[in-house]
Formats: sequence, C-alpha cells, structure tokens
Amino acid sequence: MLRSNTCGELRLSDAGKEVILCGWIQKSRDLGGMTFIDLRDRYGLTQLAFNMDTNADLCSTARKLGREFVLQVSGLVKERENKNANLSTGDIEIEVTKIQVLNEASTPPFTIEENTDGGDELRMKYRYLDLRRSNVRANLQLRHQVARYTRTFLDNQDFIEVETPVLIKSTPEGARDFVVPSRMNQGEFYALPQSPQTFKQLLMVSGFDRYYQIVKCFRDEDLRADRQPEFTQIDCEMSFVEQEDVLKMFEALVKYLFKEVKGIDIDSLPRMTYADAMKFYGSDKPDTRFDMRFVELNDLTKGKNFKVFDDAELVVGICAKGCAEYTRKQLDELTDFVKRPQVGASGLVYARVNADGTIKSSVDKFFDEAALKTWAEAMKAEPGDLILILAGKADKTRKALNELRLEMGTRLGLRDKNKFSCLWVIDFPLLEFIEEEGRFFAMHHPFTSPKPEDIAIVDEMLQLQAENKLSEDCISPRANAYDMVINGVEVGGGSVRIFNKDLQKKMFTLLGFSDEEAQKQFGFLMNAFEFGAPPHAGIAFGFDRLCSLFGGADSIRDFIAFPKNNSGRDVMIDAPSEIALKQLDELGISTKK
Amino acid sequence: MLRSNTCGELRLSDAGKEVILCGWIQKSRDLGGMTFIDLRDRYGLTQLAFNMDTNADLCSTARKLGREFVLQVSGLVKERENKNANLSTGDIEIEVTKIQVLNEASTPPFTIEENTDGGDELRMKYRYLDLRRSNVRANLQLRHQVARYTRTFLDNQDFIEVETPVLIKSTPEGARDFVVPSRMNQGEFYALPQSPQTFKQLLMVSGFDRYYQIVKCFRDEDLRADRQPEFTQIDCEMSFVEQEDVLKMFEALVKYLFKEVKGIDIDSLPRMTYADAMKFYGSDKPDTRFDMRFVELNDLTKGKNFKVFDDAELVVGICAKGCAEYTRKQLDELTDFVKRPQVGASGLVYARVNADGTIKSSVDKFFDEAALKTWAEAMKAEPGDLILILAGKADKTRKALNELRLEMGTRLGLRDKNKFSCLWVIDFPLLEFIEEEGRFFAMHHPFTSPKPEDIAIVDEMLQLQAENKLSEDCISPRANAYDMVINGVEVGGGSVRIFNKDLQKKMFTLLGFSDEEAQKQFGFLMNAFEFGAPPHAGIAFGFDRLCSLFGGADSIRDFIAFPKNNSGRDVMIDAPSEIALKQLDELGISTKK
Repeated sequence: MLRSNTCGELRLSDAGKEVILCGWIQKSRDLGGMTFIDLRDRYGLTQLAFNMDTNADLCSTARKLGREFVLQVSGLVKERENKNANLSTGDIEIEVTKIQVLNEASTPPFTIEENTDGGDELRMKYRYLDLRRSNVRANLQLRHQVARYTRTFLDNQDFIEVETPVLIKSTPEGARDFVVPSRMNQGEFYALPQSPQTFKQLLMVSGFDRYYQIVKCFRDEDLRADRQPEFTQIDCEMSFVEQEDVLKMFEALVKYLFKEVKGIDIDSLPRMTYADAMKFYGSDKPDTRFDMRFVELNDLTKGKNFKVFDDAELVVGICAKGCAEYTRKQLDELTDFVKRPQVGASGLVYARVNADGTIKSSVDKFFDEAALKTWAEAMKAEPGDLILILAGKADKTRKALNELRLEMGTRLGLRDKNKFSCLWVIDFPLLEFIEEEGRFFAMHHPFTSPKPEDIAIVDEMLQLQAENKLSEDCISPRANAYDMVINGVEVGGGSVRIFNKDLQKKMFTLLGFSDEEAQKQFGFLMNAFEFGAPPHAGIAFGFDRLCSLFGGADSIRDFIAFPKNNSGRDVMIDAPSEIALKQLDELGISTKK
Repeated sequence: MLRSNTCGELRLSDAGKEVILCGWIQKSRDLGGMTFIDLRDRYGLTQLAFNMDTNADLCSTARKLGREFVLQVSGLVKERENKNANLSTGDIEIEVTKIQVLNEASTPPFTIEENTDGGDELRMKYRYLDLRRSNVRANLQLRHQVARYTRTFLDNQDFIEVETPVLIKSTPEGARDFVVPSRMNQGEFYALPQSPQTFKQLLMVSGFDRYYQIVKCFRDEDLRADRQPEFTQIDCEMSFVEQEDVLKMFEALVKYLFKEVKGIDIDSLPRMTYADAMKFYGSDKPDTRFDMRFVELNDLTKGKNFKVFDDAELVVGICAKGCAEYTRKQLDELTDFVKRPQVGASGLVYARVNADGTIKSSVDKFFDEAALKTWAEAMKAEPGDLILILAGKADKTRKALNELRLEMGTRLGLRDKNKFSCLWVIDFPLLEFIEEEGRFFAMHHPFTSPKPEDIAIVDEMLQLQAENKLSEDCISPRANAYDMVINGVEVGGGSVRIFNKDLQKKMFTLLGFSDEEAQKQFGFLMNAFEFGAPPHAGIAFGFDRLCSLFGGADSIRDFIAFPKNNSGRDVMIDAPSEIALKQLDELGISTKK
C-alpha cells in the first residue's frame, strides 16, 4: 500500500501518529509563513501543513505544486488550531515531513468543485474529471447502494439472479433494436435486448420460480432529453403468483430501499386504476405529492351559451389553493403555458374565489355568481383559491390539464424532491390503437394477460377482426398490468403474463401477426408453452431513473458513470466511430456512406 | 399465492396440515389401488398420494396426468409408510383432496432427469427443458452464490460497483470486436467491450479508488470448444497500490469464496514466476494438484552418440510414479499421444526403474545402466517408477511434455475435481513476438507496466526499434503482471498499470502504433493521464470459468443459462437471423449476401 490511511479517516484521537496519505491536491493556500494544501481522495479531504520557518525547502516545494497533482505525503497527525467543523477530518492536519509527487497534472478545463462551471459538453468530454467532483461520485455511490440493497432484499426472498444473453434475436415489435452483424453467419444479425422479457419467461417455464437480474438493456430510439441508448433495469419474474403477490413483494422492496438507502419510512402504497388516474390526474403516472385533482364540470357548465364549454367533450378544472391573488401577468403566463404546442390547449378559463367569498371569472359574461358558486362547491374551492378550467376533446384536454396541474404544483412548491409519494397504477388497458399504424398494439407487451373477466372482450375483438370490423372505437379489455409511480415518474411496470399457448396465439392474431410471423419471432416461447408453463408474473424497474429519484435529481445522466449525449455519442471516447474496411469485409457488410 | 408451501419444505412435523402445492409432475406410479405422483418445483420433490378406494374419481384423474403437467393440488400432509431417506421431504406425502391442472404438457423430447439422453443439440434447442434438470439448475444457483459472495467480499472492502458502457469504440488491438452500426451516426459503429479495461482505468483517474463490476464482455473469435462470444468477468481495479496489495486482496477473495461456497479452506496461494512455470511445467498455467515436475537432462544425456538427444536444444523428462509396469500397449499409447499434431513431439523415450533397482530404457543401445542411474537420480525416480523423456526445440518440447504430464496426471487419478490447488503465476514477459505479424505485441495489454527494474530494457528496445534492429531475439522486459491459476486453469489475470503518460507513449511506440494511431484509439486515456493519474493496478476473473471450476465441471456451458453453440448460434431462439431490409436501410448498411 502506498498509504497508511485515507484522506477521510484521521481524527483527533490519531494525533501524534506518523501517517502516509495519497491523493489529489484540491486547493492550496500560501499564507506566507505557512502553506496549506487540501489533499483529496474518495474518502475525504485532509489538510496538509507546511511551515516556512521549520522546513523551508519542503514548504517551497509544496508551494510549487498545482491543483490535481497526485501526491504521496508522510507526516505527523496534529491537532489543528483553526478547526473546521464542516469536515470530518477538520480537527486535525498533517505536519508533512516528506512529499513524493506521484504524478503531475495539467490545469483541468474546469475546477473540480461541487458546482463547476464546465458546461455539459466539456463535462462529458472530460468525464473522468467530472467524476472527481464529490457530488457526482456520491451519485454513483448511491447507485451502488441501491443495487446492493436490491440484491440483498431479493436474495433474501429466494430470488436467483440469472444472466440472460446480450446477443439475441431481433424482433420488429416494440422499439427499434440495435443489431450486431454476425461474422460467422454472414448476412445475419444478433440484436441487443430491449429487455430480457422472453428469457425470464422461459426461466419460469424452466421452474426457476423467482428470477431477477440487474441488467443492461438497449433501445435504438431518437433520444429525447434524458433517455439513454443503453439503460439498466431491475428485472424480476415470479411463478405461481397472482397480481396481488407481485404488488406486495415489490411494495416491500421499495419500502426496504427507501428505509435502507434514504432512512425514510414509506407507510403505504395506494393503488389507483388507470381509469381513475386518467380521470383525476390526466396521466397514467400522477404526481401524488400533491392533491389538486381534476373535477369534471360538464354538467355545471352546460347550456349557458358559452360555446367553448357547450361544444366540449370535456370541461375539467383544478383548484389552485391560495392563488386567487394571481396577477393578470401570472394568469397570462398560465394561458401562454397551456397554449404551448407541447401542452396544446386552446385557452384557459379561470375563476378567482375572493376573500369575501365572491367569485370573479374570465367568463362572467356567461356565468353568474350562482353558477360560479356551483363550480366552487364541486371543486371544494375556498376563499383565496383559483379555479383553472380547460375544455375540448377529452383525451387532449386531460393531457393539457395534467401539464397545467404539474406546473401549478411546481409554482406552489408542492413537488419537493425530498418528499416521496409512491403508488401503484393498475388495470391498464391491454391494447391501444395506434392511429399511424391503423391497428391495435399491446400497451405493455404481447405477453401481458387480460384480466380474466375481460377475456370475453378479447374473443369479441377477434370476432370483429375476422369480420374486418375492428376499429379504434373498440374499448380494450383491461390487463393485469401495473406500474409503480413515484413522484409522477413511472419507475417500474409489469404484468401477469399469459401462460396458455392458445390465449397467446389469440393475442398475436389480434396484434396482426400471421401464424407464420408469430412462429418465426416468438416460436421458441410458444413452443416452450407446450411443455408445461406455470402461471407467472413480473416487473421491471428503470434502475437509472430509480437512482436519480433517490438522489433527488431530475436527470439520470449524473447517475450513469459514462453517459451518452442526445445524439447517442460518447464524446469522451469519440464513439461511435468509423471502423476499418477489413472489419466490414469480414462481416460481409458495407456502408452506404 | 397459488400455493401455501413449496415442494421442498414439508417435514414430518407438518403432518396434519392442509397445504396447497404447485409444481410439475416428475413421475407417476400407478400401483393399482394407489397412485403416486412426484411433484417437482425448484425447491424439491413431494410425493402426492391418491387412493382408488377412498377417492376413485380423483385417483382416476391423477392417473391420466402426464409427465411435466403443471398442477395445483390441495391436500393433507401425512406420514409416509415407506419413507425415502434420500429426499428431504421423504418422511411425508400429501393425501390429495383436489387437483387443478394449471397447464398441460406435451411429452418432452428428453426426460427431465439428472442424466438425460438428450444429446447436446437437442438440449440446446430445448434449453428451457434442460434447465428443469436439477443438476443444471444447481449449477446456476451456484453461479448466483459465487456472484453474491464476490459482491459481499468486495463491498466489505470498500469497492464500488460501477457499470461501464456496453456501446463503446472499436479498437483493432487485441481480439476482434463485435460492432453495432449506428443509425443516428450513419457509417459509424459502436463496439461491444472485450473488457472494461480503459473505463476502469479512467475510474481510477477519477479517484474511485476501488472499483469492481461483474460484467458481460464480448469477443468475436472463432469459437474453440468451450468459448462463448459473450462471457462474464469479475473486473476489479485499485489505486495507490503495488502488486503485492493486489495479490493479497484477491487471494483473500478466492479463499473467501472457497470457504463460503464450497466449505473448503485454502491455506496458501504459492507464487511461481512465469520462468519457473515454463521450466518446471512447460505451461504458464500449471496444474499443481500433482507434482511431476520437469527435470532437464541435457547434461546427463550429452555425448553418448544418441543423435536425437545430442541435437536437441532441450532434453526433458518427468517421472511417473508407480508406472514401471506399464505394458508395451500402454507405452505405445503414450507415444501415439505425444505424436498427435496437437501435442507435436516426434517421439518418446522411456526408462523403467524396476522393482530390483535395475533400469530398462528404450534407448539402452546408447545409455548403459550407470548413465540411466544418473537420470533416475536427477529425477528422484524410485523402483516402480517410469521416466518419460522428450527432446527437441525447447519451447515446443516443453509444450508437448506439459500435455504428456497432464495426460499422466489424468491416468494416475491425480486431477481430482474436488481437490483444489491455487497459485499465482507472476513476472510474465511484457511483450511477445508474434511471428505472423512480424512485431511485438503486449502479452497482457498495452497498459501493463514493466517491472521498474526492467524499464531500461524498454528503452533499449526502443533504441533498437529506431535503428530498425528490433528482432524476435530480443528478450522481453518482465511485467508486473500476474495470473491466478487453479487446477491448471487460468481463472484470473491482471497487472500493475502504466500511469505515466510518457511511459505509456513509449509502449505504444514499441507496439508499432504511430503517434496519430495511438492518439486516435487511446487518446482519451492518454489525455486523462495528463490530469493526475494515480498509481493503479487490477485484475479480472473469468466468471463462467470460475463457476464451472467451483462446480467441478470441465465445460462452462452448463454454468450459463442460455449459451451459444460453437458456431455462435443460439439454436433455441434461432439467432443470429436475417433482419428486415427496412432495418438495414435505416442503418445505412447493406449485406453482401
């Protein structure tokens, strides 16, 4: 070992000890007679002291050392005169007797401080320096802890971690695959897994009973903000269970993680149906850190000659507590907000419930005080509150009001990153109609089981399909599918799986697969179902997202050691990059460029 | 839960309980009055009993159920009349009151027994059935345990598990990369990592201090037996350490794993230099479960007019204890063995040390009894032993004698799979000359540090290179590189790394990289070294191999859930496979086929 101690462990009780430390120069201060250097390693900072009076040579040497130089120093632990209560080692300093410069350092392109001025691109290019910042390293240490406690919990529940293959088969269903040309089987390609879904189901067929894996997955999608082409899942599957068992098991996991990692007790994970989530929050991942539920007002607004409301499929509002005093400017901001193309509303109606109980709305022309009172009652609005109403096509209006609700939550400081509200959203629709494709797609994936009481609907839809009458107006059967939502973020999702080969075939038919296509792509799974598949169900958590949530951050990027940018590039190593013609030839492929 | 208990947990003390079990039918026996079914799950087997006299309907139903049907049964735990001491549940059976067939099963293509008749290809195609066999599942459970204890050990030693990226940059040095065409950056490719080597070094530059990862790696090589295109490593790196620290840390890991997973105490991990390993075993991964060291006989065989020996660069033998009685046929077998092209010797000389102390050799014509006695002495051969000698070019002869030694070890039963002999092989050469390429290559990788006392040799070689005089006769400097060898298998290897940018540049030059090439491929690492790189060193273990060793198996395949065959195919899912033209177009590539 090049050191006797780390830079984070020496205390006053160590005073008098001869020690050797290694680390980087965080900062140095030349005070004339004395020079102080803060030496940094992963474990902390320790102050090194050099005295011009007692050791001029060494002190002169120390003065010449720059930031980020790597040192090995020997010296004596001494009590500090000016203690630093903010530092775990703040009671002591090292009276250095010997310095060895292990490596020099050029001046870094940005300073290694918690709040650096680097700018994103520069930080990404010099990620190895960015990772020296204690807050970024703390994020990755948190990630390690979340993984570690996840494994502890699942190991204790008899789950077996099984590694599934990375080089698998491409399937056109779902997102776009990354593919890997095969040299030994020219003209053929492996695909990188978007999830180990089929493999974990096969493990259930194999009798593994309880499986998990913390595993890299891949999606070749155009990257929206905060998406990564490679991401990590906590992937789990159980046999001989019903939905209730899965919900209980993973509720317990999440509670355990909050307790162990954050020291927070989560007392309950309420459940909300997808239908309710859409009705009351306009989202399948409601942020339940605050209430502000949607209240539908169609009945109360009808027939007053306000055409916008009368023509609307849905009139729906929220009550913003204590916002009656919003200025004209603030209300205009909100109107602009809802009219942004990403939100998509055509306008905003508001009503202030004044301190004296009178109500003043932007549509006074159509609605008298009595009418407005009925709104306020329905919305449980009290004096001082502001009612905000949107109207239009139901889906679009709900989506827009969801955005407005979140915006108001943010404005009102109701979305505290250190407060956590978890819930299950259940009873998702099995299918959704994708207009551009003109057909139904699996909302979760094609292996998701309909709710037993809705299987009849599957048969009806198949009948309609056979008669060529299947349309987007058909209401999907509900699925035994569930999402875990924390603070408005979908952190996990899963379903009870189909384990009956006939039902699985029906699903493929309904999704527009010919028998041949289904066999070609998922034949191995359907064949496996011939040999005794057990009832099974599972879930997958987005691990990067879960970690960023635990870390109280919006972006997942700083919870990934070496993330890619929005063009899918690693700007540090400069990947992807061109490869040699010889490599292409060996693979039997050519590029068009 | 569909069950109250598993098939492995009921005991005599549970007699009288009403239980519900789920599982697969392992076997059923119809004894006329009684029918018995063994119900199997991951946890064990439980006997179900059906009585024709007391419940004829249920018994008739039970008789019709085939192997591998999935059942849910309710019933009463009862003491068995004929107990089965080989089964943990062998004292009880379930008097079944209700059967629910959860799923039917076609007859499997092979029986689900420990020793099945499937044949490799069939087992691979139906891997999900193969995985039902308790011994295959036990292998994967063992794998889980090895991973778990590895993490426990390293976590306790302050290592942080950090996930490094899978989509990285292709580098021509080393084995062939798998590549992934980029859709967003057409004409460019990611590569899948052969190891996280450069990333873990960057993490050291970042101050992570102690890193590990159990991680998938990829190599597009022609698959020799028991190689997989994707494999798993335990990858580790430490800062501010010397070789000794790494050896001690990972000695402790391996001892811990043997203790926790196998209950075996490994008392010491001896160290052997590469030079000694080659001299005494003809291999850099000697199987030290048995001795049978090489003894060089050049001095004792010279000048007796036996041209084969006189002309040989090396005459070297082993002493096979107690084999003096080998028959002519056995000796011919050994001669045939060494003459096989894979072994490559031109012939075998033997000498029997008879019970009476006389020695009889195959070269009596040239060597009298006195001469033969000197051999026997040198080799510490005793009456009853057989001396086996090969001669020729040194390297080739050592390699051949290594094969013969292992063959003799096997024949003599000295390679017991339940006995473990671990050692470190150290002081590997830094470079090796590859004849076909006409240049030196890094034996470990280009980031390996020469031994400090051999750095002068690096400079000399650079000088020779500059003068165009570098030849294969140059003796490589030794490296601070080490392998862990267990039972003749290299399970891990690593090195102290170069952390000085000038030395790293020299190494690239010596390996034939132009400055430009080095910068293009490893610029990010060399740039990182500009900003204060700490001394660091690391190791990587072949996880699949380590598990198979712990499991006492020769093949890694049954320690991988879904392995690929020797053509790199997954015959179960049929991958790789052709992909849609649309996919190729989006990627901007075309196949030549």
